[in-house]
Amino acid sequence: MHGNVIAANSTPPGKGGVAVIRMSGDGALEIAKRVFLPFSGKSLDEYRPRTQIYGYILYNGEKIDDGMLTYFPAPRSYTGEDTVEISCHGGILVTRTVLEALFAAGAVPAEAGEFTRRAFINGKLSLSEAEAIGTLLEATSHEQIRLSASPARAKLQEAIDGIRTSLIDVMSSIYARIDYPDEDLGEFSDEETVARLLSVRERLAKLIDTYKTGRAINEGISTVIAGKPNVGKSTLYNLLVGEDAAIVTDIAGTTRDILERTVALGRVTLRLTDTAGVRSGELDKVEEIGIGRSKDKITSSELILAVFDLSREIDKSDLELIDEIAKADGYKVCVLNKCDLVNEKNPPFDLSLIPKGVFGEVISISADKDNLSAIKTLTELINRLFTDEKISCGQDAIVSSARQHASLLRARSFIDTAIEAYRVGIAADAASSDVEMAIGAISELDGRAVSDSVVSDIFAKFCVGK
Amino acid sequence: MHGNVIAANSTPPGKGGVAVIRMSGDGALEIAKRVFLPFSGKSLDEYRPRTQIYGYILYNGEKIDDGMLTYFPAPRSYTGEDTVEISCHGGILVTRTVLEALFAAGAVPAEAGEFTRRAFINGKLSLSEAEAIGTLLEATSHEQIRLSASPARAKLQEAIDGIRTSLIDVMSSIYARIDYPDEDLGEFSDEETVARLLSVRERLAKLIDTYKTGRAINEGISTVIAGKPNVGKSTLYNLLVGEDAAIVTDIAGTTRDILERTVALGRVTLRLTDTAGVRSGELDKVEEIGIGRSKDKITSSELILAVFDLSREIDKSDLELIDEIAKADGYKVCVLNKCDLVNEKNPPFDLSLIPKGVFGEVISISADKDNLSAIKTLTELINRLFTDEKISCGQDAIVSSARQHASLLRARSFIDTAIEAYRVGIAADAASSDVEMAIGAISELDGRAVSDSVVSDIFAKFCVGK
Repeated sequence: MHGNVIAANSTPPGKGGVAVIRMSGDGALEIAKRVFLPFSGKSLDEYRPRTQIYGYILYNGEKIDDGMLTYFPAPRSYTGEDTVEISCHGGILVTRTVLEALFAAGAVPAEAGEFTRRAFINGKLSLSEAEAIGTLLEATSHEQIRLSASPARAKLQEAIDGIRTSLIDVMSSIYARIDYPDEDLGEFSDEETVARLLSVRERLAKLIDTYKTGRAINEGISTVIAGKPNVGKSTLYNLLVGEDAAIVTDIAGTTRDILERTVALGRVTLRLTDTAGVRSGELDKVEEIGIGRSKDKITSSELILAVFDLSREIDKSDLELIDEIAKADGYKVCVLNKCDLVNEKNPPFDLSLIPKGVFGEVISISADKDNLSAIKTLTELINRLFTDEKISCGQDAIVSSARQHASLLRARSFIDTAIEAYRVGIAADAASSDVEMAIGAISELDGRAVSDSVVSDIFAKFCVGK
Repeated sequence: MHGNVIAANSTPPGKGGVAVIRMSGDGALEIAKRVFLPFSGKSLDEYRPRTQIYGYILYNGEKIDDGMLTYFPAPRSYTGEDTVEISCHGGILVTRTVLEALFAAGAVPAEAGEFTRRAFINGKLSLSEAEAIGTLLEATSHEQIRLSASPARAKLQEAIDGIRTSLIDVMSSIYARIDYPDEDLGEFSDEETVARLLSVRERLAKLIDTYKTGRAINEGISTVIAGKPNVGKSTLYNLLVGEDAAIVTDIAGTTRDILERTVALGRVTLRLTDTAGVRSGELDKVEEIGIGRSKDKITSSELILAVFDLSREIDKSDLELIDEIAKADGYKVCVLNKCDLVNEKNPPFDLSLIPKGVFGEVISISADKDNLSAIKTLTELINRLFTDEKISCGQDAIVSSARQHASLLRARSFIDTAIEAYRVGIAADAASSDVEMAIGAISELDGRAVSDSVVSDIFAKFCVGK
């Protein structure tokens, strides 16, 4: 029985040169011995761990192909368990057959993410690190890779561990004072405790602030290109889409079939929506629905790029659009298109007709022109608006998921309550419970089971024999 | 400069848990040192070859992620050159970025099949083995895997090597007798030479005979399901398609848009075409074209499965179809469908109306029935017809490509000419040239450069100083 040993193809599905099949769990090596015969004739035990061994792959004893096998004994493996990796020829049926050979030899199919889940359970990585690995696999921009790659994962974990350790220190001293109020335990006074809580609070606040940047990189900024028909929304769209090689996804919008495209502009990921042109006048039903959706999108977007034709008179449709945009919360950029068509005989429209204070920025573009400077302006603006330029992926701890952010906010709120408890002179009991809740929130962030570590840390600080 | 080091993603494209990027060539380790930093802080040189090393992957010095690296020093690698494999997280952009890091560090993009081509050039595998690996990657049936997997590849190479060695022996003795006719070189007499050529010829013939089986497994048997409309061609089609889990391809026909499906029936791969029903009477243009194509398919197929409705009278359309089939060369199977609708009140059609000698086999099927026995009959028949049951993939040397087969036929023909030369008493000069041509044909088969090895083998048999 090896119900505990999971196996799966770890490489992408499809045809390739090689495929890697991974097996993890107690007994993985025993199963490996049934499906792999080193050419040397030696037993798998006789090889050093982590050495790639060349040999035959067997299916119920029959040699089905040659391949490489590597054994990673626990705990020095991805999952922390005994792990075996087999590389075989990357044909679709070959790969499936090798996997079936492992099942025939006692392995069971792994569930989605089960290797990483086991790695988490076995303490090889935290929940926030597992989240970052998920982001990494989905990354569509180089900055997303930087945000979720190993150095950045380590920085965040370090910051979280530091905060937790400080909170546990504070809590153990509070408990010591509660239990042994008369002894001089060399622990902190109330004032010192408050000072330490304030210091943790500051670190938390700093980490919370990074979410703005992390979110802009990871989840991205919802962006709408709005404008009446034929003003050149596509010019802007193509300009943005063509700017960066990191455009890789066409995501069908989850709601109302609006097509969304992911574009990296500097460090920021724009989730870009091209909308139906908004115009007034007599409209058919379908166009009305389309325009209704455009207006919804304007309301819900964080960044609104409003396009106008500089070479034509501003008209009722433009002004209605501006009204619509003025009501929205997103950051508004006025994009003046077709500046190449403007000349002495054909002057630009009167910009004073655009109400003051609606747009945060005005830029000019043209389908005929080298628009590098317009894109540069837009990139700098968007990165200044939505990221903190002092924060650097890989160098700084950055929070990038809503879940992590929520945990941090919760932790900060508990610390605020604890500080308040000291300030108004409520018994340390209340404060200790708040600090414990804060530790709980932090531990939720990285998924660590809180109680055991807290408890043992606390009692380790007591004198021996007490 | 490392223009010699090629790099590519060796795993299938797309998103997965891990991706493997491979690098091969002189200087691969130097490039690896620029893109990989072991966590241990040690240099890559300090590790044993073939050990998976955990560390950071660098892009122009920046840590972009963690991963595993394995170094396979020449000649113990797939290509026979210094080879480095890097496993990284299997995201699409992550994989591309790691590959770009290798290019930035001096590697160049590998061309399609270049690793295997280098393996061939470096003598790690023969051309026929490389062909088999190609088949393996495309395999859609388990028997195709057996045919092209490592044990079968080795068997074929062994047979080819044996034949070549024997021919080189014969040739060197012929040359010795030509150059030094008066010396007793202890070589073969003309009679012995002919006997040895006959023995090689027998081994060649045996190998040539395996092509029937190899082709049936690898390239497959073109098969057509024919019949007038509504006789139940789909019943048979579904029966065959449902029989084996190894059905994986829907190939749009290269000619005339006929849809072809690959089905494994026993060991044989059927390239199955479902045709438009053939019927007589007034037809519109489109139907006429469809029927014309059906008739072409009947003519060109190696296996014809003709379907009739047993529960209805045989009619003019059936008889015309039988006429058409009778003219074709393929093996003909008469499939009597709807036998479940036949009873005392509704007797079957008069089978004597089918001309004698047209069909090699008659089977009955029914959409309502358990058709296991019909499929069993068909499977046994097809495997008996198109394969040699004594030949076993993995146990025997099997030729499976038209190119290999052609080389063998050419070699046999040269040997026949050489034997004939001896028989009619023509000088050994002529025979030697034929044997050399036969060696050439064999060497084309596995792609070995012939001249060098032949030459050095021959002169190695001469006495020293001669």
